[in-house]
Amino acid sequence: EFFDKAGLELILPFGGLRGRGAMKQDPPVVRDLHLSLEDLFHGCTKKIKISRRVLNEDGQTSTMRDKILSIEVQPGWQQGTRITFEREGDQGPNIIPSDITFVVQEKLHPRFKRVDDNLIYVTTIPLGKALTGCRVDVQTLDGRLLNIPINDIVDPKYCKVVPGEGMPLLQDPRRKGDLLLCFNICFPKNLTPEKKLLLKRALLS
Amino acid sequence: EFFDKAGLELILPFGGLRGRGAMKQDPPVVRDLHLSLEDLFHGCTKKIKISRRVLNEDGQTSTMRDKILSIEVQPGWQQGTRITFEREGDQGPNIIPSDITFVVQEKLHPRFKRVDDNLIYVTTIPLGKALTGCRVDVQTLDGRLLNIPINDIVDPKYCKVVPGEGMPLLQDPRRKGDLLLCFNICFPKNLTPEKKLLLKRALLS
Repeated sequence: EFFDKAGLELILPFGGLRGRGAMKQDPPVVRDLHLSLEDLFHGCTKKIKISRRVLNEDGQTSTMRDKILSIEVQPGWQQGTRITFEREGDQGPNIIPSDITFVVQEKLHPRFKRVDDNLIYVTTIPLGKALTGCRVDVQTLDGRLLNIPINDIVDPKYCKVVPGEGMPLLQDPRRKGDLLLCFNICFPKNLTPEKKLLLKRALLS
Repeated sequence: EFFDKAGLELILPFGGLRGRGAMKQDPPVVRDLHLSLEDLFHGCTKKIKISRRVLNEDGQTSTMRDKILSIEVQPGWQQGTRITFEREGDQGPNIIPSDITFVVQEKLHPRFKRVDDNLIYVTTIPLGKALTGCRVDVQTLDGRLLNIPINDIVDPKYCKVVPGEGMPLLQDPRRKGDLLLCFNICFPKNLTPEKKLLLKRALLS
């Protein structure tokens, strides 16, 4: 066994110089980076403080130090985007500090669901408006208020596409995906005989 | 290798008597048995012809013979029910014929979808009837015609439960699951201004 190890030290580049073995690197440290749709829409800078072991000047002992890593979030980043800081893990004699990788996770949004570069907005309207038309207010991620007229008959599968009101495209953030307006139609709970007669005249004649 | 084989013949029960090795049995032959919901509702007898190799009287040679296997399908059998015929596979010297296993697969039915012991029936009705009431005809698996009154307001999630009109329960085929009547509501494609006025009076006032 000793012989093997000696052989190893001769072959590998750093083995013989710095100590008892070859320089090794642990697998990356992977952490989630939770971002809101607003962060992913506008882009932003996220600063993350890490505590890491840093080698002292003697090259043998180490001290815990805080460090700020800065992530430039680009407009249009998707869930799953990975950002790697090379060799920002703990330092120590005979180790290559591991990489630190952040993986983008989208936070749930109170109004929108993102699908690729599109945003889905679900609104509940009463059946009467679904049949006779209505306007839907949607507050965008950049704070504008859209007032979208719905003139078509809205059935449960109807979806209004509002072009260019989705997420920015990563390749060109001036271009955007679409807003998809979906409807939850609220049926009446009860109807008087008179109202049923009106409905029969409107829908069954 | 020869020595190993000889050793084996001494240890295993049949090895020394009938030839060069121990009696072995191959894994079961598994075949799908496709049954209609009617078959599974009433129960039935399925006869399946198999061709198998049968040992001749000399105990060494064999001949292909047809054989009829008979399966008594019980009312209420589910998809995945397994029926095994033991040792009905090919015969031969020094082999235990393999078992033959049939696995029940439900054929798609033109009217019903089965979920456990319940049957789901989807019917399309115009919105006018969904709001003002209707009757739905359903032909049962045993050929009766149900005429089911719908007096509730039918919204897209509404489901009418008709007790006892589902599949027979395996434990007691006199008892049955339920029929679940689901609705696909057909919205009008266009409405005149006059009809929209009637709808507003009926639904938005």
